[in-house]
Amino acid sequence: MAYSVISRRLALTLNTNLRLSVSGCRYASKAAPKAQVDFDYDGPSMKTEVPGPRSRVRKHVSSQNVAAVNFFCNYEESRGNYLVDVDGNRMLDIYTQISSIPIGYNHPALLKLMSNPNNLVGHYWSFALCKPESLITVLESKTSGQMLYVILNQMFTQLDFKCVWFLVQNKERGHTSPSNEELRTSMINQGPGCPDLSILSFMGGFHGRTLGCLATTHSKAIHKLDVPAFDWPIAPFPKLQYPLEEFSRENAQEEARCLEQVEDLIGKWRQKGKPVAGIVIEPIQAEGGDNHASAEFFRSLRKIASKHGCAFHVDEVQTGGGCTGKFWAHEHWGMDDPADIVSFSKKLLTGGFYYKDAFQPYRIFNTWMGDPTKNLLLSEVLSVIRRENLLVEVNRSGKALMNGLNELQAQYAGILSRARGQGTFCAIDVCDDATRNNILQKARNKGILLGACGDRSIRFRPALVFKEYHVHMFLNLFNDVLAQIK
Amino acid sequence: MAYSVISRRLALTLNTNLRLSVSGCRYASKAAPKAQVDFDYDGPSMKTEVPGPRSRVRKHVSSQNVAAVNFFCNYEESRGNYLVDVDGNRMLDIYTQISSIPIGYNHPALLKLMSNPNNLVGHYWSFALCKPESLITVLESKTSGQMLYVILNQMFTQLDFKCVWFLVQNKERGHTSPSNEELRTSMINQGPGCPDLSILSFMGGFHGRTLGCLATTHSKAIHKLDVPAFDWPIAPFPKLQYPLEEFSRENAQEEARCLEQVEDLIGKWRQKGKPVAGIVIEPIQAEGGDNHASAEFFRSLRKIASKHGCAFHVDEVQTGGGCTGKFWAHEHWGMDDPADIVSFSKKLLTGGFYYKDAFQPYRIFNTWMGDPTKNLLLSEVLSVIRRENLLVEVNRSGKALMNGLNELQAQYAGILSRARGQGTFCAIDVCDDATRNNILQKARNKGILLGACGDRSIRFRPALVFKEYHVHMFLNLFNDVLAQIK
Repeated sequence: MAYSVISRRLALTLNTNLRLSVSGCRYASKAAPKAQVDFDYDGPSMKTEVPGPRSRVRKHVSSQNVAAVNFFCNYEESRGNYLVDVDGNRMLDIYTQISSIPIGYNHPALLKLMSNPNNLVGHYWSFALCKPESLITVLESKTSGQMLYVILNQMFTQLDFKCVWFLVQNKERGHTSPSNEELRTSMINQGPGCPDLSILSFMGGFHGRTLGCLATTHSKAIHKLDVPAFDWPIAPFPKLQYPLEEFSRENAQEEARCLEQVEDLIGKWRQKGKPVAGIVIEPIQAEGGDNHASAEFFRSLRKIASKHGCAFHVDEVQTGGGCTGKFWAHEHWGMDDPADIVSFSKKLLTGGFYYKDAFQPYRIFNTWMGDPTKNLLLSEVLSVIRRENLLVEVNRSGKALMNGLNELQAQYAGILSRARGQGTFCAIDVCDDATRNNILQKARNKGILLGACGDRSIRFRPALVFKEYHVHMFLNLFNDVLAQIK
Repeated sequence: MAYSVISRRLALTLNTNLRLSVSGCRYASKAAPKAQVDFDYDGPSMKTEVPGPRSRVRKHVSSQNVAAVNFFCNYEESRGNYLVDVDGNRMLDIYTQISSIPIGYNHPALLKLMSNPNNLVGHYWSFALCKPESLITVLESKTSGQMLYVILNQMFTQLDFKCVWFLVQNKERGHTSPSNEELRTSMINQGPGCPDLSILSFMGGFHGRTLGCLATTHSKAIHKLDVPAFDWPIAPFPKLQYPLEEFSRENAQEEARCLEQVEDLIGKWRQKGKPVAGIVIEPIQAEGGDNHASAEFFRSLRKIASKHGCAFHVDEVQTGGGCTGKFWAHEHWGMDDPADIVSFSKKLLTGGFYYKDAFQPYRIFNTWMGDPTKNLLLSEVLSVIRRENLLVEVNRSGKALMNGLNELQAQYAGILSRARGQGTFCAIDVCDDATRNNILQKARNKGILLGACGDRSIRFRPALVFKEYHVHMFLNLFNDVLAQIK
């Protein structure tokens, strides 16, 4: 650790000197305060291009299908905000495995947790409807006590849809037992046992890739091609114009148009005999291009769902866990009753959802339900978020990131546009797909890992320990990349 | 450990005395050789009824929906073939969390593995298309090198179906790129991008409970009720009569009838415009009641699949991993080319499947793919199976178990019938549902954990370390239970 502190100071000096001496540097982010992440490295350190020779060799010897793998990681050496690869390259990770490393790599609290022999036993049995008290308490405190039941599962939104149908059908039959005809027909995939109910989703949305989820996912054709799908309604998601303050009238009209379509589709599918049982939506469409909508839009949508008796299902798989500056992104909407079902994963390390009404528990069940190790880790992550006051940090870093992106966008107006974000959940558009990919590759070779989304967006998904210090380090390096592109 | 050895001897003596002194004991299994499972307990030890007072209290204070939970476990104290509950009851576990504890509770090899600090890092990142060499090697050696690609995932059979469609559609378009029309329509859930392909499954089968899997699952109405389903064909699974040697002609006719139906359905669904892309089947229908079919039946079914260009998907989620006496149950069929896709989970600790042909890897992908901790555990489990020669043990225990069940069935002809099994993957029928459940409860209170399946079957799903010694201990206790029922 002593070594780490000394080398950090050295690196800070080097970084400052570097910024001052780089020729053609058109942008300099403000002086970076000292990093507060003790287990962190001091900055990127690149030894080869990425993928380097060792990653390339490993891709040739695999029995798994690794064509989608960019490079191989050395997770043992990765720390805090830095991912280290097998070639020894150390990169500032602002993508964090598609937003799934909540408090950085190898956080000491998690290492300590798992080195406790009492916690090891959980690895050998995954079968459970288990109940870590601390987790439940934290989640309850995060849901104003409104939502009572929590299901932890690796199955993401898949099971939530079943929950939607159970809720709707239980209400439909007045909470009585199903008829023999319902039981009989359900066994052969026919109505009334298997009713022709639908889920309304939004164009550009992403809710997973298993069969039911995929029918509500509309972000990339390659996800959906060749897979049979349900005939379910798909509404347009608002396409906002930026900067928001200049286009408030147009954006309000756009949101009204989308809401009108939602009501229209609910009516049409009712007439088709496939009534809409639930509406599923992301607070910010992530995979689909970081598409935002106003709090007012979500409030209106919630009202429409209630009016038509549809369950309102908020998919917080990417937005949940603090990255928007609140624990749940839907808290930004300022509603007493924001959702019937909320699903989560990613930063919460396990998949799960919480919901309002009870139903027969055996109806949502499988062998690996509630992996106890993941639940232990989640409890500890929630403690660290509280202890280290990480939501405050996210708001501070997010503000610095948005300011920086807006400045770079002004400076590189031909390349960048539509900077947008909430907390550190930010994105910016690039003039075209090829330039975007070029920027991502150049950034990686400079030691900055970023992600793509939509057709031509770059998305920022840092860990919650991504401090203002890291923001400025990123902005300076990103500026260097943009200077090469211009 | 010294304590354990001494107490085992004591227990053996006590058990022997118990057997000899019990009044009304109509059956005595042969003398049990000393247990070879060093980390095991010596026998059941019951302190309360199950669920005991501590389990009952805990059910009242949960924020999770625990109505499906029978009792709470103390996994720290559970060892080998014995599950210990929070009331201190120690039960011989012949159900092993629906067959998902491969080498017993807290096997020393797994404890050692996870106490190695180098292996801890895997907990904090689950995102991977990772490649543990040992695992791949073992799986390849188990598949005669025929199947090349292994996908590890928690998603069970869900993704395998996608693989079926990809294989079929790739072949259909001659391995060329999809058309723009295919890409466009896939985004809105319509053909030709989302083709109307079906999967043929069997009545009584169980392939999981997520949406796509559920459309092929037909074992219990409560799994399927209220969930929209695809209109896919469902064939009858043979209903064999026992003992097999007495009904060979009738059973051959029954299997021929089912195969005829399969071909008939394939034709009908082709005419409907929903061609059958794949056939999915369990080597032994587990959840549906431990329904067996002959090797000849599966060989014929494989031929039908090939003839009609359907992928043949063998679901080894319950049967894989050694419990039938071979590593894969389909090895009993004696075929060079038994399947296009084989899915596994349960005893293999992670979900996954292996398959023949390559396809674009990004098409099967998600955040939690290939949990590295589970893969490490799986590699070690495979080593233990080899080192401890567990397949030989399974065959020995399975033979003893089947002999014992046949004897008990003869003795309690009014209660038991249709004893059947392969390896220790055994089952027996009870005269009716109520008696079956009564037997299960009484057995539990005597320290024997068993599972139900189908309408009135009891299924045996011990760990691979369930030795002949444990079989005889079980048979004696089970006899005591049956004596009370008679």
